Amino acid sequence: RSEEMAKLTQLIDNEVFRAFATYATIVLLKMMLMSLITAYFRITRKAFANPEDTASFGKGESAKKFLRTDQDVERVRRGHLNDLENIVPFLGIGLLYALSGPELYTALLHFRIFAGARITHTFAYLIPLPQPGRGLSWVVGYAVTISMAYQLLKAVLYL
Amino acid sequence: RSEEMAKLTQLIDNEVFRAFATYATIVLLKMMLMSLITAYFRITRKAFANPEDTASFGKGESAKKFLRTDQDVERVRRGHLNDLENIVPFLGIGLLYALSGPELYTALLHFRIFAGARITHTFAYLIPLPQPGRGLSWVVGYAVTISMAYQLLKAVLYL
Amino acid sequence: RSEEMAKLTQLIDNEVFRAFATYATIVLLKMMLMSLITAYFRITRKAFANPEDTASFGKGESAKKFLRTDQDVERVRRGHLNDLENIVPFLGIGLLYALSGPELYTALLHFRIFAGARITHTFAYLIPLPQPGRGLSWVVGYAVTISMAYQLLKAVLYL
Repeated sequence: RSEEMAKLTQLIDNEVFRAFATYATIVLLKMMLMSLITAYFRITRKAFANPEDTASFGKGESAKKFLRTDQDVERVRRGHLNDLENIVPFLGIGLLYALSGPELYTALLHFRIFAGARITHTFAYLIPLPQPGRGLSWVVGYAVTISMAYQLLKAVLYL
Repeated sequence: RSEEMAKLTQLIDNEVFRAFATYATIVLLKMMLMSLITAYFRITRKAFANPEDTASFGKGESAKKFLRTDQDVERVRRGHLNDLENIVPFLGIGLLYALSGPELYTALLHFRIFAGARITHTFAYLIPLPQPGRGLSWVVGYAVTISMAYQLLKAVLYL
Repeated sequence: RSEEMAKLTQLIDNEVFRAFATYATIVLLKMMLMSLITAYFRITRKAFANPEDTASFGKGESAKKFLRTDQDVERVRRGHLNDLENIVPFLGIGLLYALSGPELYTALLHFRIFAGARITHTFAYLIPLPQPGRGLSWVVGYAVTISMAYQLLKAVLYL
């Protein structure tokens, strides 16, 4: 047991791996925050998706009117889905890239830019900033992931 | 080759890693089940999203009326999306946490509570249970993921 | 440092792991392509979700009419969401399966069939092909993931 633990400790002592773990956790926590923001807007705008969620507002028609879509809620939900679409590739490609033995400096640059781009994307979506603010932040995160995929495939390609 | 295999076997012999692999597979299989439940409701409620899916019901207007949304289908789809939003963070943070050398007892507790919370969440969504049943099960899974993220960052933080 | 790197290099030199990294990257890049196809249809069909995205078409009512849903855009979005629902389980279960020491031949077969099924699914969705083309390609990818989950649980089960 202690020998196995030693192996794991070696993995977690690897600086690239630690950096990936740190930035992956940051972007995932940011994504999880979207759930809280959605809940906040659903409650303050009184706009729900399920009849059982409106039961505390009374019965019948008086509660039914809160089963509706709201512009602010939908905006947060679009931002959340965009996170899923972009953070899932970062997680998969980034983890494998981190395990493919990249230079620490290069890897850190990729992780930091991706995290910065996604945080910027969320602000651009929720404020909202005029375009191309949100578009550019999306492109930067996308390009970072493509760059990691390219270097990963160069290192491991096995078809 | 056999030496490399030995290394991998050591990883998979690690009890925390095996526990994570087991519970991650359980929650992913549960999430995959949502696709089958969606298909079941689409077929029994005759509510489809694509024209080519309704072709077996005839042509023209007679088939077109099955291109519609249905309350039961939409409910399963909301549960499925909620799974994606919560199970993706669990996968990413949980894997890295499992590799950061936590105590077996603590790690098992996290994995078991998360799996239980998400299975409860699905029942609460599909039956549906009155609130705060679904809300509480969601909060429990969310809190477990935050707890793993905190311990992971404490162990590996590298900005 | 160099010793740790050696450990990582051993993981990335493992053929099953390299194969997983390759096919996981391929399906993730394919999924990322859905974002570009969505953007292409949004721009050519002039169908946007956010007011700030239509600002370049003018102000007021003249821009507001481009805030609409479009059949082609929605079709790509459904394909994208279906990717998320199916590729996330493949990533999680596939990675853990690749680390559980499967035979290279068996593992490659799983990864190749899954990648082929998901690429076929995308063509079936976007062309679109008549059913059961899309349905069958979905089932094949689903069955491959279940097969990996079964073998993974057989190898690691720790409840």
